[in-house]
Amino acid sequence: MSSTPYPRNAWYPLGWARDIGQSLAKRRVLGEDLVVFRTSTGEVAVLDDACPHRLAPLSLGRLRGDSVECGYHGLAFDCSGHCTQAPGMQRAPANAQVRSYPTATSMGMVWVWMGNAALADATQVFHLPEYDDPAYSVIEGDALPVAANYLSLADNLCDPTHVVYVHPTTLGSTGREETRVQHQREGRKVVTWRWVIDGPLIPIFQGLKDFGGNVDRWHYYHYHAPSIAVIDFGSAATGTGAPEGARGDCIQMFACHFITPVDARSCVQHWLLLKNSPADAATDERLRAGLRVAFNEDKAVLEAIQRNEDKPRDWQRVQLGLDASAIKMRRIVQEMVEAESA
Amino acid sequence: MSSTPYPRNAWYPLGWARDIGQSLAKRRVLGEDLVVFRTSTGEVAVLDDACPHRLAPLSLGRLRGDSVECGYHGLAFDCSGHCTQAPGMQRAPANAQVRSYPTATSMGMVWVWMGNAALADATQVFHLPEYDDPAYSVIEGDALPVAANYLSLADNLCDPTHVVYVHPTTLGSTGREETRVQHQREGRKVVTWRWVIDGPLIPIFQGLKDFGGNVDRWHYYHYHAPSIAVIDFGSAATGTGAPEGARGDCIQMFACHFITPVDARSCVQHWLLLKNSPADAATDERLRAGLRVAFNEDKAVLEAIQRNEDKPRDWQRVQLGLDASAIKMRRIVQEMVEAESA
Amino acid sequence: MSSTPYPRNAWYPLGWARDIGQSLAKRRVLGEDLVVFRTSTGEVAVLDDACPHRLAPLSLGRLRGDSVECGYHGLAFDCSGHCTQAPGMQRAPANAQVRSYPTATSMGMVWVWMGNAALADATQVFHLPEYDDPAYSVIEGDALPVAANYLSLADNLCDPTHVVYVHPTTLGSTGREETRVQHQREGRKVVTWRWVIDGPLIPIFQGLKDFGGNVDRWHYYHYHAPSIAVIDFGSAATGTGAPEGARGDCIQMFACHFITPVDARSCVQHWLLLKNSPADAATDERLRAGLRVAFNEDKAVLEAIQRNEDKPRDWQRVQLGLDASAIKMRRIVQEMVEAESA
Repeated sequence: MSSTPYPRNAWYPLGWARDIGQSLAKRRVLGEDLVVFRTSTGEVAVLDDACPHRLAPLSLGRLRGDSVECGYHGLAFDCSGHCTQAPGMQRAPANAQVRSYPTATSMGMVWVWMGNAALADATQVFHLPEYDDPAYSVIEGDALPVAANYLSLADNLCDPTHVVYVHPTTLGSTGREETRVQHQREGRKVVTWRWVIDGPLIPIFQGLKDFGGNVDRWHYYHYHAPSIAVIDFGSAATGTGAPEGARGDCIQMFACHFITPVDARSCVQHWLLLKNSPADAATDERLRAGLRVAFNEDKAVLEAIQRNEDKPRDWQRVQLGLDASAIKMRRIVQEMVEAESA
Repeated sequence: MSSTPYPRNAWYPLGWARDIGQSLAKRRVLGEDLVVFRTSTGEVAVLDDACPHRLAPLSLGRLRGDSVECGYHGLAFDCSGHCTQAPGMQRAPANAQVRSYPTATSMGMVWVWMGNAALADATQVFHLPEYDDPAYSVIEGDALPVAANYLSLADNLCDPTHVVYVHPTTLGSTGREETRVQHQREGRKVVTWRWVIDGPLIPIFQGLKDFGGNVDRWHYYHYHAPSIAVIDFGSAATGTGAPEGARGDCIQMFACHFITPVDARSCVQHWLLLKNSPADAATDERLRAGLRVAFNEDKAVLEAIQRNEDKPRDWQRVQLGLDASAIKMRRIVQEMVEAESA
Repeated sequence: MSSTPYPRNAWYPLGWARDIGQSLAKRRVLGEDLVVFRTSTGEVAVLDDACPHRLAPLSLGRLRGDSVECGYHGLAFDCSGHCTQAPGMQRAPANAQVRSYPTATSMGMVWVWMGNAALADATQVFHLPEYDDPAYSVIEGDALPVAANYLSLADNLCDPTHVVYVHPTTLGSTGREETRVQHQREGRKVVTWRWVIDGPLIPIFQGLKDFGGNVDRWHYYHYHAPSIAVIDFGSAATGTGAPEGARGDCIQMFACHFITPVDARSCVQHWLLLKNSPADAATDERLRAGLRVAFNEDKAVLEAIQRNEDKPRDWQRVQLGLDASAIKMRRIVQEMVEAESA
């Protein structure tokens, strides 16, 4: 599938809130370089990372109070991008202004709005209710750079069928998985799911709970266009009615993926895990390590695909049944892009 | 001389047979990435290295029996490129097919045919009779990557006159070599030769045989377009009639060069040496080491030339008498290309 | 400010004379690769670094007497670029000629003329009288590569106002410098200057002389288009009349910058320092170290600016009062380029 441009009117993940402090940092989102800092009141400021005078990156300057001062000639900009100091001038030139971007925080992630600021609504930032539910504990994940278009990672996160081939030691079963995959579009979301009935636990669930035998397990991939995936996966003792909704004594996890499109050929996969059991340092570290293995397996495949896609060659492509869900997801993204350019 | 495209209807060296086993390997020939493996019956399979579904390189997948299984979604292809497994599908889509390429083996080298498969004739693969002659022993060489167009290496292998400037410590004499170079086209081959009468042994021949004085030595460069060179070089005691054909008690060697065009700016120089004396570990290693020095000297020159040729500059070029042979060789290659596009 | 092409009819710095001996070296000036060597009579020869036969770089060949011999086929060229040897030929082909470039030496620097050789006048090479004045000692500097267009470095060397922001620990004062900057065009030179009255010594002057209190200090930036800057800076006891010309007991230094445009995105900053006090190993090394810190601070800023300028983006730029001098300097360069193309 060919790469699609990005919608701009959307909340995109900028970085983990824990990584953004009162100092200057550089980030790249939708092909734009940004300078990021936290003000004394805790707000996150995001500006274009170029002084409009000589284009020196502001991230190489200094944070003075709640303004960033350019390291070349001392022009200073507040968190809305207004020039508050222009050395040698009575007043700053009228056009001395850096573009600023709205931000919001949710689920430990700082989000940025790269589009029309008038449309940015912080109440619409993604939030999963279980994140605040005391029945669930949070395992903080990583910010994994992937040298592939973000929609190629999105394809992967709409697709339960690759698991057995790419992740046989962590998330997949050892046998073939031929049970039916279903999917459905819901507004700007696509849900893709499959049940495996009366099978063994997947590798990373082993040791977490003793079901005394086989389990019924579910995999629901919720993809919120353009760049958020929540994978709800779990297991309950087989025959106890889980597929019909009776998941009482079960393992349930949510793998949340917040994708930052960096540019047409790279993205950052921010992930965290929720699980329906208390935090436990040893267990949590084992799960984190297992997911790191799995997500690096995806990274290797997606980066190799990107290198093939970058070749100046007219590839003949085959479409399979499993692509239906990713095709719907890409269509939503395309609709968002087209709505913006209309 | 400007770089010329490649003929496709030719047997090109793919890799030493000793390096190709029952596992997946990646190669690049004429700008195409290929996955290579040996089947259980010993045949070598060569396919395009991209699954037609999502373009994942097949070389990152798994060899299952005599089929390659894609590492992303499990599509499998046999050695003719037919899809034998498409997970989740009753049958593979009709267009699920990877291009396969004919192969043949000769002189320890696996050869591949990148052009019209209907024209591939394994009986036409290059073979030097002395390779099977018990009077000659084989010194296995290397697969030397050279960051230059393959025809620039071909120029070098049609040209005895560079030896004294580029290889003074191995293949060249210490003095100037002004004896006449002759050449002749024979079909798709150009032969270029010179004799040096009553001179000293070249450095790498020293110690191999005692001629009790000076020698007459010959250098015949047989270039088979587009990418094979055999250099027949040797020495006999001076005045014993070698130039007239009486080479009885002589040193004779054949340096065979099989060039793989990787893309417009790089190639692999596969080489081996035949000599008319029995294998001897110490001698063979000394000869191998000497040739490694020499071929790396060529590599340094050719890669520097490539960097100059890549500059966006309209170079004024000078032609010398010594170029006549390389010009004929390039004309043959050009004829092959034109015949294919006609 | 967008990058401007280079005038060709100008003396450009090629390299420190101390670094150019009787051996082959490679240099790059105005986008051209050059082979450089010194002849037995001490002259510096500069030729295009490509043999006109096969384009092998001559710098990979051998110096034989006062000629460079190509390392591939032995063509030899004297320091005017004439072919003096063409192996296998009765005489060299008429077009066997490499372009040579006039050179001159001044201030320990070898200069090269890349334009119309008929206009090269060695008496016009830049020379600062104080370089030969025994009242001044010379501190040899470096050849610092900067990955930025040479005019971006030129902007920097027309601009006293960046010092306090970029060089607070070496060349700048610790406070803000709001004193007025003046400038004036004089032919192909722009002079930019400011005085700071009754202030502290700048960091690198500390310990050189005891003025018993504050000083008056001057900063005169003499920029000779297209690529030479001399910064005359110094201090005298405040109130003793320095601004009016009475600089009797003062510290005075000249920082000389000779910029080699390498190509559109890189240059080499050759610098040396003159001071009005005798050479002293410890002091000189401390000054040299301080300037290295400062010039590497400029390098970091200018290279980051270049990366922003290289982005395919239509930047909105702000102009400040401090730009007036650099704008005049760029106008002179533009006039030189236009005069050549007329």
